[in-house]
Amino acid sequence: MRVLSGMRPTGKLHIGHLFGALSSWVELQEKGHECFYFVADWHALTTHYNDTKEIVNNSIELVKSYLAVGIDPNKSTIFIQSEIKEHAELTLLFSMFVSVSRLERVPTYKEIKQQLSDKDLSNAGFLIYPVLQAADILIYRATGVPVGEDQVYHIELTREIARRFNYLYKEVFPEPEPILSKVPKLLGTDGRKMSKSYGNTIPLVADEETLKKMVMPMITDPARQRRTDPGNPEKCPVWDYHKAFGISDKDAEWVKDGCTNAKIGCVDCKKLLLKNMKERLEPIWERYNSLTDDYVKDVIVEGNKKARQVARETIEMVRDAMQLDYNFLRK
Amino acid sequence: MRVLSGMRPTGKLHIGHLFGALSSWVELQEKGHECFYFVADWHALTTHYNDTKEIVNNSIELVKSYLAVGIDPNKSTIFIQSEIKEHAELTLLFSMFVSVSRLERVPTYKEIKQQLSDKDLSNAGFLIYPVLQAADILIYRATGVPVGEDQVYHIELTREIARRFNYLYKEVFPEPEPILSKVPKLLGTDGRKMSKSYGNTIPLVADEETLKKMVMPMITDPARQRRTDPGNPEKCPVWDYHKAFGISDKDAEWVKDGCTNAKIGCVDCKKLLLKNMKERLEPIWERYNSLTDDYVKDVIVEGNKKARQVARETIEMVRDAMQLDYNFLRK
Ligand code: SF4
Ligand code: SF4
Repeated sequence: MRVLSGMRPTGKLHIGHLFGALSSWVELQEKGHECFYFVADWHALTTHYNDTKEIVNNSIELVKSYLAVGIDPNKSTIFIQSEIKEHAELTLLFSMFVSVSRLERVPTYKEIKQQLSDKDLSNAGFLIYPVLQAADILIYRATGVPVGEDQVYHIELTREIARRFNYLYKEVFPEPEPILSKVPKLLGTDGRKMSKSYGNTIPLVADEETLKKMVMPMITDPARQRRTDPGNPEKCPVWDYHKAFGISDKDAEWVKDGCTNAKIGCVDCKKLLLKNMKERLEPIWERYNSLTDDYVKDVIVEGNKKARQVARETIEMVRDAMQLDYNFLRK
Repeated sequence: MRVLSGMRPTGKLHIGHLFGALSSWVELQEKGHECFYFVADWHALTTHYNDTKEIVNNSIELVKSYLAVGIDPNKSTIFIQSEIKEHAELTLLFSMFVSVSRLERVPTYKEIKQQLSDKDLSNAGFLIYPVLQAADILIYRATGVPVGEDQVYHIELTREIARRFNYLYKEVFPEPEPILSKVPKLLGTDGRKMSKSYGNTIPLVADEETLKKMVMPMITDPARQRRTDPGNPEKCPVWDYHKAFGISDKDAEWVKDGCTNAKIGCVDCKKLLLKNMKERLEPIWERYNSLTDDYVKDVIVEGNKKARQVARETIEMVRDAMQLDYNFLRK
């Protein structure tokens, strides 16, 4: 399988990103798939065109996060979208046969417009964003795309575009399959939806002290006012974190019994969580902190080169299929 | 002044193209302006995405016509749009801050959709076509754009986009001025609007025999049923051709007097036109016929190279202005 996925460079990552995407990326890499993981900086423009000054820094930060969680540049290709102009070319070509009304019907179009009503999303770039996304995927002729539930529709549109191209011109594109991984549902530390703007997210890269400061005051089952009040893990966000961070069966039993029978305090419970989180996150922090600027730069340069080569091959195939081939100029 | 203009590669040119565009292009070149003349093959896709097989041939044909009418590759840059990927990149970037409703308000949008109701123009490419056009112009930071009356609005939109970019990011683009040349109004040989589908157009490149076959049966003032019937040149398409092909004052007097007083026949009048047309067109035919494939190829390769260099410079400026500059990767 050839796998492609990307994230927008919108700032520091939190553990929602780890469980929502990055761990499954690493898993796919470790299964031996040919993986392309990119920084979707042009996508960031669709919502941030008038606030661009952090995009490049965030892009580098994102690459560092990819590396920190275990994306291995010797196994996977890490690259930056805007460095591969072929994404733009393919977007333009696809836009020739994707109808405006089709794009207006993309469920997220109206939805996100309403959600982000403080942003100017009336721009054409936001409308054609799913076409850009299709180009991102198809320019690498990817066959698998790890996505969240909310993105499945976009993959459906990508498949439609691939089919339409293949039908209009010539068989060039596979129809990529969405790869849905089981994403543990994690709330923010305050029990609300995880959102950087609420300040309730646990950063992917931090140190023990910070982690402690975020975890210890976490909201728990409101029934446990006092240590002697019994609780119910199913009503407690901490419990979800336990599961996400792979609590052992034995420890899980200890928590369930301790909580429902008021044998342990929430502080004990959180200390166990902290220990498990640290075990999972510390290697990420260490890798992150060991990255030098030069190394990160080399990874990007190499990744861009590899990605560009595949993208160019695809564009050749596309131009040949569309009979827009000026190759005689290069002979 | 830096001049940019282009034509769609939709087939053989006729003399409408000569007077509508190409002669003014040559004039601008001869005035010493820095001229970029391109083949708008991506534009051809907006209306012909499902009928692409002639585009490359038509593109080469178009370059040959440019050369035939006197565009001199030593003075002007002749190139093919789709060979310069930066047009697509800039289109994508511009689309981030041009609103969909703004594009729907472009007068030609609904108009052409109605005119070409046999074509599928519901595609996103057709909607963003004016953005692509703006990118075509601004990627060369052109200051003057020879256009027809019907395109003035598009230049206005291009100016708007330039202003908006300069305001949002940094002063990069000049606001190009439309260059309106006096275009003689020429009807088709049958007195209807010139249109290839009517078969009433005189090809730019032909031979004397063909020219004769087109000119001699031309519709004239319907009042002149017989040679002895007086006519009125103002009511005669042939007269418009006379003016377009630069009839001398003396000959004009001869036609006016001869027509209104029935002293000459329409055949005499057309023979004079033929002579003048041949004088103007024969050098074009000769130049056209002297072009070798290798020469045309070299012209395109050289032109693409020059165009690409300027386009890349502009993209550098754009990325710098938008703070999307990953130049550290190349250091
Ligand atoms: S003991 Fe653990 S699971 Fe139970 S409420 Fe406290 S933190 Fe939540
Ligand atoms: S004499 Fe010439 S101008 Fe007069 S009607 Fe005939 S063709 Fe036309």
